[in-house]
Amino acid sequence: MFPGPLGVSLAGRAMEDGVWSLAARNIRDFATDKHRTVDDTPAGGGPGMVLRADVLSAAVAGARGPGPVLAMSPRGKTLTQRQVRDLAAGPGVTLLCGRFEGFDERLFDAPLPDGSFIEPVSIGDYILSGGEPAALVLLDACVRLLPGVMGAASSGHDESFESGLLEYPHYTRPPEWEGLLIPEVLRSGDHAKIAAWRLAQSETDTRLRRPDLWERHLGARVQSPSGAHKKKEK
Amino acid sequence: MFPGPLGVSLAGRAMEDGVWSLAARNIRDFATDKHRTVDDTPAGGGPGMVLRADVLSAAVAGARGPGPVLAMSPRGKTLTQRQVRDLAAGPGVTLLCGRFEGFDERLFDAPLPDGSFIEPVSIGDYILSGGEPAALVLLDACVRLLPGVMGAASSGHDESFESGLLEYPHYTRPPEWEGLLIPEVLRSGDHAKIAAWRLAQSETDTRLRRPDLWERHLGARVQSPSGAHKKKEK
Repeated sequence: MFPGPLGVSLAGRAMEDGVWSLAARNIRDFATDKHRTVDDTPAGGGPGMVLRADVLSAAVAGARGPGPVLAMSPRGKTLTQRQVRDLAAGPGVTLLCGRFEGFDERLFDAPLPDGSFIEPVSIGDYILSGGEPAALVLLDACVRLLPGVMGAASSGHDESFESGLLEYPHYTRPPEWEGLLIPEVLRSGDHAKIAAWRLAQSETDTRLRRPDLWERHLGARVQSPSGAHKKKEK
Repeated sequence: MFPGPLGVSLAGRAMEDGVWSLAARNIRDFATDKHRTVDDTPAGGGPGMVLRADVLSAAVAGARGPGPVLAMSPRGKTLTQRQVRDLAAGPGVTLLCGRFEGFDERLFDAPLPDGSFIEPVSIGDYILSGGEPAALVLLDACVRLLPGVMGAASSGHDESFESGLLEYPHYTRPPEWEGLLIPEVLRSGDHAKIAAWRLAQSETDTRLRRPDLWERHLGARVQSPSGAHKKKEK
């Protein structure tokens, strides 16, 4: 599964160039019995199998690189672009990928040797067959932010979530397609007008598609110390 | 990139068994010029390149299978477990994966031959290098729900988001690890007590870790027609 999609295209070229690297370790290698058992039945009953805290703790100790240890889990806080930025700016990350019903919870209650704790993190409100696709997503989001990976092609600014709003819609040639025209303002050459139109589109799309983001955005503006942004529209 | 992680483990075995299949098509094959151009500069200016509506529309027409057409985009509504369930129960899905700054917006404004529209869908509030890792996540979430994929090992019930709450924590052997014990109640054998404890844990963890989910959960209970659930606790 690793590097999988991260071994090709943008992320793959950056890996070949030594911009980033990845080492995959198999949890099973840290089991202590001859069957290499990593899981057991859930205490209290229920379907599925639970990953053992002792085996996973040994795996983390054996695999850990610099930076925090995150466990991909739907029980974690949801990954945000802010967290992605922090991780990309940091020294690295160790990701724990589970399967089955999940991890023995005590894994998150015992401190690591450096006093930090393994933190569960979720990429969204859906269930995957395992943590691996989630880890690939987290790593892809981080790798594209590393210096030299995206090049000058994209600045990383103006994008969805960077400002707390969805990004504005894009258009390109041809000017007419299926009877649909590129909005007039984008062909005006008036940069101030274009910027105002794009902001208005961002706001409208966020309000209609993502009322949750919109509410948070309004809240942030209301709490902003700058008087210029202190109007709350609903 | 495809099938990538979907070609191994649970999803891979199910693919070999013919439970599901995947066909990847290259958008570039639907370009009409000799350079196989799929993108152009953004109307109105700005960094990056925008994927052309005419080329992508041809690609969708050439690639489309049964079911809806979704475009992986941070501008879309956020994927939920409910949508995953609907897709897994349906006849299939066609996923459009973009790169660069995104799609020409007109792609979403022109009806497909069957009268439906391409729908943008996001897997979370972070930016990826392209739609592919997001498509892998969406497909993994769907494939694990297909009959025969998970087997009897996991029922798909009691999991995070199925009930609008995070799943309760799990524990397994050993009974004591690093001085931490499996909660007493889970060793009691009292199924009613265990169920009540697990629900309380689900509620506490959801409230603390995901106040957004918790608010929605309380709202759903208040709106529920069943009188038994009509209490709002804050």
